[in-house]
Amino acid sequence: MLSRQVADKLAKYETPFYLYDIELLNQTLESLMSIANRYSYKIHYAIKANYDARLLQIIRKYGVGIDCASGNEVRCAIEAGFDPKSIVYAGVGKRDKEIRYAIEQNIFAINCESIEEIDLVNDLAAEAGKVVNIALRVNPDIDPKTNHCIDTGQADSKFGISYEEILSSVEHIRSLKNVLVIGMHIHIGSQIRELHVFENMCNKVNVIVENLTNLGFELEFVDVGGGLGVNYDMPENEPIPNFASVFAIIKQHLKVGDREVHFEFGRSIVAQCGELITKVLYNKTTATGRRLVIVDGSMTELIRPALYGSYHNIENITSEADQRLKYTIVGTACESTDVFDENVSLPLTKRGDLITIKSAGAYGMSMASRYNQHDLPGAVYSDEL
Amino acid sequence: MLSRQVADKLAKYETPFYLYDIELLNQTLESLMSIANRYSYKIHYAIKANYDARLLQIIRKYGVGIDCASGNEVRCAIEAGFDPKSIVYAGVGKRDKEIRYAIEQNIFAINCESIEEIDLVNDLAAEAGKVVNIALRVNPDIDPKTNHCIDTGQADSKFGISYEEILSSVEHIRSLKNVLVIGMHIHIGSQIRELHVFENMCNKVNVIVENLTNLGFELEFVDVGGGLGVNYDMPENEPIPNFASVFAIIKQHLKVGDREVHFEFGRSIVAQCGELITKVLYNKTTATGRRLVIVDGSMTELIRPALYGSYHNIENITSEADQRLKYTIVGTACESTDVFDENVSLPLTKRGDLITIKSAGAYGMSMASRYNQHDLPGAVYSDEL
Repeated sequence: MLSRQVADKLAKYETPFYLYDIELLNQTLESLMSIANRYSYKIHYAIKANYDARLLQIIRKYGVGIDCASGNEVRCAIEAGFDPKSIVYAGVGKRDKEIRYAIEQNIFAINCESIEEIDLVNDLAAEAGKVVNIALRVNPDIDPKTNHCIDTGQADSKFGISYEEILSSVEHIRSLKNVLVIGMHIHIGSQIRELHVFENMCNKVNVIVENLTNLGFELEFVDVGGGLGVNYDMPENEPIPNFASVFAIIKQHLKVGDREVHFEFGRSIVAQCGELITKVLYNKTTATGRRLVIVDGSMTELIRPALYGSYHNIENITSEADQRLKYTIVGTACESTDVFDENVSLPLTKRGDLITIKSAGAYGMSMASRYNQHDLPGAVYSDEL
Repeated sequence: MLSRQVADKLAKYETPFYLYDIELLNQTLESLMSIANRYSYKIHYAIKANYDARLLQIIRKYGVGIDCASGNEVRCAIEAGFDPKSIVYAGVGKRDKEIRYAIEQNIFAINCESIEEIDLVNDLAAEAGKVVNIALRVNPDIDPKTNHCIDTGQADSKFGISYEEILSSVEHIRSLKNVLVIGMHIHIGSQIRELHVFENMCNKVNVIVENLTNLGFELEFVDVGGGLGVNYDMPENEPIPNFASVFAIIKQHLKVGDREVHFEFGRSIVAQCGELITKVLYNKTTATGRRLVIVDGSMTELIRPALYGSYHNIENITSEADQRLKYTIVGTACESTDVFDENVSLPLTKRGDLITIKSAGAYGMSMASRYNQHDLPGAVYSDEL
């Protein structure tokens, strides 16, 4: 967000690197937590969005917990100083050793995603001589014939346990001696920008919670996941996501009594706080007349455009030319898919210019690879410039 | 290729891991080099396909050179003992420090992909007091009006210099004192299974070489790239790619006099020699009736299905059940795209079974990431079992 102002100061760092806006991260967390605290909502940061140690320290200070997707993520959170009691662990494929570690660390809850997993957690909890708190991660799709939900959602996805499987295993789950179902977890998706989706979600959750309660589960918390999107198109217009609106919708439509309500936000906390700063290496024009700008970043630092076709706003932060041209911005990797964007309007762009690829704070560095033997990119923090 | 026979021996290794078939790699290299040597063709291994140190040792013994896509790849090749004089370095985005390193190491040639890059190599060669051998990497598309090529190819891609840019810079390139154009490089794509494509390529190369010669470039070698595909559908039917047929086509159609002819093979050398061995963690059925098998591998170890929609043949190597069912094989990563394949016919598959994802020796480990904080997978070699 502040790249143009600090371009001169960036010149000394080896590109490509991630630039993190510490002030914006603090503002985002203040905005998020002031409203969450008002409603007594519990917030977990989906750590897979970004593992940067400095960012984790800041996030921790706001009293945010952690949502993990692997045993190593649980370890990363604990090593960053998060209270194990603020850590939840979801994930469709938990290995034995990961579950053992989570049990050993006494985390808040393991969100189980299959009946077989619940059995395994029970066995490993017995082995450790403990009763472990778990949540049922429920696939949001529920057959309308058996309940009052209408929207279908992603019944075919790999996440969560289908309501049918829970129904057919209720007695079994309740008979297990070393797990205690204390919560219900749902996650409807990611990068959601249409807020009415959260209203639909509340209607589903209300039904699921009511049904699970009727089945005899004493739920202490309801984890409604995350999914709040950010404005990739015009990040400057919306640097901080509209947490207030989401919470207002949830407050109005979620009917789960006095149970704790948990959220998992990843992208919405860190995406806008990070940008990938790259340097222009070369210009060339294809036989078809396309102007290529080759930057020293690539899909190995930021794979979202190649993997998902994701859009990131791109700017030249050093050119002072009046003339603007349309460029295709490509990376250094030996892959045709390594194109950041096409038809990008930039001021006349030359070798040595700095290019920023914005809204890259989430799922940028955390998905980086060393393909082509590229070094992993460094991190620069705005308050250390 | 040998998984079923060795399943028992695999049980002791922590999954997921890459299993490399050393015998097949040797057979592949023998097949490749016996024919290449007959024609005096020079073979470079595209190291980006797999950096495994053990595989590199074997490849090196066959007298194969290395094709690099970054300075770190050049370093990796040299550290693995390859003669710098057998190393070529292509890549659209070479940084100054990478070019400096390649110059310092006196590699065989730097394949330049833009006029600006040629200028930079010249400057850095002057700085080092050397004259550096370069090749022009030409974008294969040539406007039919200016020559005899017909097929269009990928004129719009980021790779290579357009023939037009070369034409307009001939005098300039020839005036540079510290670079010497000794070769021409072309690469038409990857995973090519229709061999007549190589005939078309020869026709293009013939024209380009003739034109460049007429323009005054004294080419000593012609690098026709790689691109030979492998049989992902039925790897057992074709464990070794048909190098003989490709070479026969090239021999018949390539008319470049007594110039050295170079090839860059990556996938065709190593893809069939590697498989990703994973263990089944859980089974579950979605509300839509889809049977999911959750394995302990994921897109972090093998991203090709998620990134390219690539097909890999999958087998259960431990189940002895007669009953076969259709399964969707999903990974542990917290990503909807982390699905290895759908509608896979497998014998009844249960927790603990070993699943192999075949033809994963190329662009598997080399593209691995630590997303979700996953550990990088290990390697097991067939001759050490």
